[in-house]
Amino acid sequence: MTASLLSGKPLAKLIQQKAQTEAKALAEEGSCPTLAVVVATEDSSTHWYVRSIERAAENAGIGCRVIDVGQDATEQVLISVLKDLSAEPSVNGIILQTPLPPGVKTQELVQYIAPEKDIDGANPLSLGLLAVGERAFAPATARAVVEMLDHFEIPVAGRNVVVVGRSTVVGKPLSLLLLGKDATTTVCHSKSGPLGKYTKDADIVVVAAGRTGLLTGTDVSEHSVVIDVGTNVLSDGSLAGDVDEASVRPVAAALTPVPGGVGSVTTALLLLHTSEAAREQSRAARTPVLTP
Amino acid sequence: MTASLLSGKPLAKLIQQKAQTEAKALAEEGSCPTLAVVVATEDSSTHWYVRSIERAAENAGIGCRVIDVGQDATEQVLISVLKDLSAEPSVNGIILQTPLPPGVKTQELVQYIAPEKDIDGANPLSLGLLAVGERAFAPATARAVVEMLDHFEIPVAGRNVVVVGRSTVVGKPLSLLLLGKDATTTVCHSKSGPLGKYTKDADIVVVAAGRTGLLTGTDVSEHSVVIDVGTNVLSDGSLAGDVDEASVRPVAAALTPVPGGVGSVTTALLLLHTSEAAREQSRAARTPVLTP
Repeated sequence: MTASLLSGKPLAKLIQQKAQTEAKALAEEGSCPTLAVVVATEDSSTHWYVRSIERAAENAGIGCRVIDVGQDATEQVLISVLKDLSAEPSVNGIILQTPLPPGVKTQELVQYIAPEKDIDGANPLSLGLLAVGERAFAPATARAVVEMLDHFEIPVAGRNVVVVGRSTVVGKPLSLLLLGKDATTTVCHSKSGPLGKYTKDADIVVVAAGRTGLLTGTDVSEHSVVIDVGTNVLSDGSLAGDVDEASVRPVAAALTPVPGGVGSVTTALLLLHTSEAAREQSRAARTPVLTP
Repeated sequence: MTASLLSGKPLAKLIQQKAQTEAKALAEEGSCPTLAVVVATEDSSTHWYVRSIERAAENAGIGCRVIDVGQDATEQVLISVLKDLSAEPSVNGIILQTPLPPGVKTQELVQYIAPEKDIDGANPLSLGLLAVGERAFAPATARAVVEMLDHFEIPVAGRNVVVVGRSTVVGKPLSLLLLGKDATTTVCHSKSGPLGKYTKDADIVVVAAGRTGLLTGTDVSEHSVVIDVGTNVLSDGSLAGDVDEASVRPVAAALTPVPGGVGSVTTALLLLHTSEAAREQSRAARTPVLTP
């Protein structure tokens, strides 16, 4: 048996269309959903990624402003930029791109992204709201995994789902999203020992550890649906996931490819979140504030 | 073999002493750590519990103000009380006691508890900060479980820990705390199917589901350390945990009793958190704010 490959591209297209439809509707009401991307690095792969967001936004009729503060920007400068963007009515969504300048801590900054514009779920308040089941934007990658499972009609309720990786941007928020969908959720990480102990019996394995070839064929069974969130840039510039495709594909039931899997859905979701944020802000602006 | 019983009382005493020592030091500097408990119910077991907090606070030299707004209080009234307490310099810690009046949603209110006074980790921001590994108060019950494991020198790093229950006050924050301590963490719940599938292989099982007799002897092994977070009031007024002690005790390696286990540590931690909050606020008040 060979695992079927679950391409993210058709779903990415559907989500991009949804973002576009909403953007068009908002444009007809006189407002253009706009995303601001704050960059403070000269790292070429970051700039490549930001340009890909810009192109996708343009295609969807969503404005995209890149604010490049340079790689020497201080924490104070970045805080002031994030505060301004949070207060600026013409900006609906804000992304703070990593890496940041040496010594600047992401966690010190993301609290200055207004929760209603935090379309990549970076502010800890967004994560906390997700945890308690309140409305908030999830990190786009975490939501992309859930949307992929949903798109391919892979049930999660009552099933054994193992997430490999405990990052703030994927592992932790994803485990909270999955719990909210009634999955039994296990989070493994670098201190878990051999992964097979947990992953072999799992119905769904999500690998988001950032380590090429981490999950191998002996870690999965013929029932396993494997979602590969890894995006590791190899020395030749090509992209590889966290799954050892050569050994996993002959064993597992299904597998998302890298590239062309979860990653393509992630960018589309950033746009959809921007449209959703713009819609919500447009509604809020029209609602009179009642002072008791 | 019979599971050894892990009493929470010696640890509770140690924590209470720590809270008291800090309170005394603060009193000598002229400030008395003070806890405010907001109550909006006539439920007798709630009032019983609040009185037990008052007594414990008094014994530790910590001030305790109970603000009883009555069972007919509106959301507006509760918000205004929480805002006032958050702004009041003589109050260092705030607890919003449940149950709340019908129609009033906990999640709408807890966001008005200032994070630095949120000593029972109720504000979603506290949960989000915990998730990203930043300083914040954990819900006292979740921290009590971690302190119990620590006190009895039960290692969690690299071990298989299963949490039964996904509540905002225990299951979710506890899973985040355990992940932060390098445990491989699984969260089970009412939709997980037979628990034994997950709990039987676990090194540590924490049961926090609020269902009497949920975990039975067939769900555990001779290696299992079982932490019972359940506090179910039976029809005769006595307290029972979530563990079926009669069947679990002959099988498991260790078990926390109810009453006299995790619960006793929880109240002591509320006091310690209040002292810690008071210390932190006293420091912050002395630190000049630098305006850039």
